[in-house]
Amino acid sequence: MKKLTEKNLTESVLSQIKTNDARKEKIYKSFIKHLHDFVRDVEPTQEEWAQAISFLTATGQISDDKRQEFILLSDILGVSILVDAINHRAQEEVTESTVQGPFWRDDADVMELGANIAQGDAFDKGEPTVVRGKVLDSDGNPVVGAIVETWQSDADGFYDLQHEDVDKNLRAVFKTAADGSFWFRTIKPCAYPIPDDGPVGKFLRDMGRHPMRPAHLHFMIKAKGFRTLVTHLFLEGDEYLESDTVFAVKDSLIVPFSASNDKNEAASLGFEVPFYKANYDFVLKKEK
Amino acid sequence: MKKLTEKNLTESVLSQIKTNDARKEKIYKSFIKHLHDFVRDVEPTQEEWAQAISFLTATGQISDDKRQEFILLSDILGVSILVDAINHRAQEEVTESTVQGPFWRDDADVMELGANIAQGDAFDKGEPTVVRGKVLDSDGNPVVGAIVETWQSDADGFYDLQHEDVDKNLRAVFKTAADGSFWFRTIKPCAYPIPDDGPVGKFLRDMGRHPMRPAHLHFMIKAKGFRTLVTHLFLEGDEYLESDTVFAVKDSLIVPFSASNDKNEAASLGFEVPFYKANYDFVLKKEK
Repeated sequence: MKKLTEKNLTESVLSQIKTNDARKEKIYKSFIKHLHDFVRDVEPTQEEWAQAISFLTATGQISDDKRQEFILLSDILGVSILVDAINHRAQEEVTESTVQGPFWRDDADVMELGANIAQGDAFDKGEPTVVRGKVLDSDGNPVVGAIVETWQSDADGFYDLQHEDVDKNLRAVFKTAADGSFWFRTIKPCAYPIPDDGPVGKFLRDMGRHPMRPAHLHFMIKAKGFRTLVTHLFLEGDEYLESDTVFAVKDSLIVPFSASNDKNEAASLGFEVPFYKANYDFVLKKEK
Repeated sequence: MKKLTEKNLTESVLSQIKTNDARKEKIYKSFIKHLHDFVRDVEPTQEEWAQAISFLTATGQISDDKRQEFILLSDILGVSILVDAINHRAQEEVTESTVQGPFWRDDADVMELGANIAQGDAFDKGEPTVVRGKVLDSDGNPVVGAIVETWQSDADGFYDLQHEDVDKNLRAVFKTAADGSFWFRTIKPCAYPIPDDGPVGKFLRDMGRHPMRPAHLHFMIKAKGFRTLVTHLFLEGDEYLESDTVFAVKDSLIVPFSASNDKNEAASLGFEVPFYKANYDFVLKKEK
C-alpha cells in the first residue's frame, strides 16, 4: 500500500481486491469507485456520514420476516425498476415487467379458477371485482397450465403481511385452463402509501416526496419454457399514475376497471351491484 | 412524470425531489445519480440485486448496542478514512486524524494520570506498557486540562464491547497536567481481525482480503478552543501496517514501543520485565 492520501485512497482500496471471480471483481470495484465518487462529490461532514450510517442501520433493523425496508429503499430510489428494465430489454412483443415489491410471500394458496381471493372483512369492505384474462405466447397461442399468482392490498391499503392478526388473504395461485384463460374474484385495489412509518418514510418526507402508489394488482406468471413474468396491472384513472413513488408504472400495464350494474351477472358471481370488471391478456417470452 | 424508460428513469427520479434544503437536495441527488451509475455500469441480474439487498439487511440486523456492522462496512471500503481526510485537509502542523472505528463508547471512566487501564485478566495476559506524552498547541505550548480518552483491544484482539461478560476495560479518560503531559499504564496492543463472523467478514473474504488491523491505541483528545482530535497510535514494525483492512495508517502515527529490562523502573510501575514504553506528543488544531 502506498502512503495513503485523499487522492490515492480509492486506488489503494481497489488494489486490495484479489479475487479470481471476474464478475465479483467488477461489481465490487465499480461499487467502491462509485461510492467514493459520491463521497468526493458531496464531501459529507463526519456528522452527515454518521447520519447515513444510522439510516442504513435502522433500515436493516426494522426489516423482519414481514417487512423488507431495503427493498422499499431500492424501490423509492428507482433502483428496483432500473434493474428490472436492464433485465428486460427489447421485449416489445411480450408483456412488460415491473417491480416485485416487498409483499410477495412464498406460501400463497392454490385456488380453483373463479375463486374469491378476498376473505371476510377484506371482501365486505371492498368493491367487488372480477378479473379475467389469458396467458399467451408471443404468437398468440394459449399457454395451458401456466401458474398465475396474484397479490394485492385490501381496501385500507394493507397487505396481509402488514396485519398482525390476519392470515393469508388477497393472494392466490391459479392454473390456466385449456384455452390459456384464468379468472378470479376479488375487490378493487386502491392507491395506498408504502409503509412510511420507518426510515424510508422519513427519507421520502426529507426529499419532499409523497409515499403513494397508484392502485394495482401484482402478478407473477410462470410456465415451462417461458421466462417468469413479474408485473402489475394498474387501474386506469388513478391519480398517482404520474407520480408512483416506486416508479413502476408502464402505459401498457394500465387497465380499465369498468363498473357494471348488471344484477344477473352480479348474482352469478355472488356480488351485489355495482361491481367492477377488468380484462388483461399476458404474453410470455419464450426462453431461448 | 414522463413515460419511464431505462434511459430517462434517473432524470425522472431526480425530478421528484422537492426540498428547500439545498444541502439535502445536493446529497440526495448525488447519491441517486451515483447509485444509478453503479447499477448501469455493472447491470446486476435480479438475483445479484436481491443478494445486495440481503447483504445490506443482514448488515443492519447484526448491529446492536455493542456491534456496528455498517461502520465496519464503511471502514473496510475506505469510506470512513476518505470522509476523515476530506474533513481534515491542510493540517500539516497538527497531529493527523484517523478513523474512530466502531468500539468507542460514551461511558469510559475518568482516571488519575498513571492509572493502569488494563484490569484483571486483560493485564495478566498482556505485555505491560507505559504510554507517556503531551498535548500541545501548534506553537508548542502545553494544553493544560485537555481530555485524553484512550481505548484498545486486549491481548486476544477483543474490545470490552465484544465480550458478553466483561464490563468496561482497556479504556479511560485522563486530564493533562500543568505541563500538558499525560501518562497511563496498560498492555501492548496487538494486531487483530475486525469482527469477521458477520456480513462484512464474508464480504472481505469474497474480495480476497484479510480482516486484520495493525496493533494500535485509539485516542480522542478534546480541549476548549481546539478541534477534537480522533486518531490512533500504531506500533512500529507491525506486519499489517501496509495492508490495514480499514486503511487508517498514516506514517506520522507510527510509534516505537520499546522493550525495557530496567527492573527498577518496572518495579516503580508495578510491572515485571520486560515491559514496553511508548511516547507521543499530540498537537491540536486551534479552532478558528
